[in-house]
Amino acid sequence: MKTVRCSILGFGAIGQGVAEVLLMKKEYLESMGLEVLVVAIVDSKGATVNSEGVDLADCLARKRTKGTVAVEKLTGVDVIKSVDHELVIETTPTNIVTGGAGLQNMFAAFETGKDVITSNKGPLTLKYRELTEAAKAAGSNFRFEATVGGSMPIINLANEVLAGNRLRSIKGILNGTCNYILTRMLEERASYKDILAESMELGIAETDPTYDVDGIDTACKLVILANAIFGLDVTYKDVEVTGITKITPEALEMAYE
Amino acid sequence: MKTVRCSILGFGAIGQGVAEVLLMKKEYLESMGLEVLVVAIVDSKGATVNSEGVDLADCLARKRTKGTVAVEKLTGVDVIKSVDHELVIETTPTNIVTGGAGLQNMFAAFETGKDVITSNKGPLTLKYRELTEAAKAAGSNFRFEATVGGSMPIINLANEVLAGNRLRSIKGILNGTCNYILTRMLEERASYKDILAESMELGIAETDPTYDVDGIDTACKLVILANAIFGLDVTYKDVEVTGITKITPEALEMAYE
Repeated sequence: MKTVRCSILGFGAIGQGVAEVLLMKKEYLESMGLEVLVVAIVDSKGATVNSEGVDLADCLARKRTKGTVAVEKLTGVDVIKSVDHELVIETTPTNIVTGGAGLQNMFAAFETGKDVITSNKGPLTLKYRELTEAAKAAGSNFRFEATVGGSMPIINLANEVLAGNRLRSIKGILNGTCNYILTRMLEERASYKDILAESMELGIAETDPTYDVDGIDTACKLVILANAIFGLDVTYKDVEVTGITKITPEALEMAYE
Repeated sequence: MKTVRCSILGFGAIGQGVAEVLLMKKEYLESMGLEVLVVAIVDSKGATVNSEGVDLADCLARKRTKGTVAVEKLTGVDVIKSVDHELVIETTPTNIVTGGAGLQNMFAAFETGKDVITSNKGPLTLKYRELTEAAKAAGSNFRFEATVGGSMPIINLANEVLAGNRLRSIKGILNGTCNYILTRMLEERASYKDILAESMELGIAETDPTYDVDGIDTACKLVILANAIFGLDVTYKDVEVTGITKITPEALEMAYE
């Protein structure tokens, strides 16, 4: 049995989802000869650390009842530097202005020779080249499939399964919220404002839908795909971004025709 | 530069396509540190062999003008046993009753420790388990992505990129000819016979469309997917097969509603 010791940095919806999946797939992973031991979880208030493996079910319960798993005043970088593990699962919130805690966590992980799996678009949108070079210099694996098309792998599909092929372009619906709103606007000839309000009520759009409807999320994904699949060195600033907030049902209909 | 010496067995549309792609991508592959040297090509009349690498452009021209590349009376198995190479590219025609030359070629390749890449569904539909076990025992790579969904990788996507996920089922349009005919029958309320005739004129259906319209091709693909992705041990006989030849436009319309 191979044991991989990991930390989960960020314990919102994604970090908790990782913990749930690890619980759910424990036996399955073991049948493949792999034990994944979570030795630390960090959220915005602090960390819980156990070198023998934290109790994931207990951590999930504490997060839901108390709002945090923190029992020690440690940050992600503290955990990376002081707790023995090989893999950092980075799920802190996306920040496209500074890169946020995620950027610091990733650099610290590579500095200490750790592998990184992340769903955090911010650091990759700002510092793709620096991060991939730091990973390479450290001999670390750096995996970020979860940043674009979570359950429909596109980066590994392009770079591994389709190795040897020359990809010319990428087309796709990169943001589910925009797709949902535009589809309903077209079908119901309804205004952006009305459909957005309904989408938020239904939980399809986020409470603050800015990242989605202003095109920021889509632009981040484009940057990551352009760098990872076409080997470019671009950042968020290189993308011309227009959101969907000013689109009228009439304009949509004309575009559709 | 790593050199891979290979044979192309079968030199119909697919074998010739492989030769064309190798010519087209020569520089690209070399830029990735890979030289692919074709040391033998075999068609139904015999073989052309050159341990320094055959001239692919010349072979393609000879095939088109003379109908064969044969200059020596050698079969695929002869070439596998007598010519020094590491990789067999097996593109002989599918035979689902006996497995055809392809089945013998594959077993001979594994017996001599060679890797196999194939587009030939027949052997995999009849002897999947035996073939994969022979490959494993020989320490050979056995790749058959081209047997199902040629340019849209599904087997490696499922087994490699989605490793760790549990796939529950596979749904899809497995045969382009059937899909084309049924779509046009529905759209034009036309009979199977008329659309089939047109499809053959357009070159969309094969001159002998039996494998496609009788569901044989689809059943073969299902067998390969079931074995490769779900780890089953099934053969063609395990599939209940119904073709599209008796479907009326009315039945199609009812199914669509």
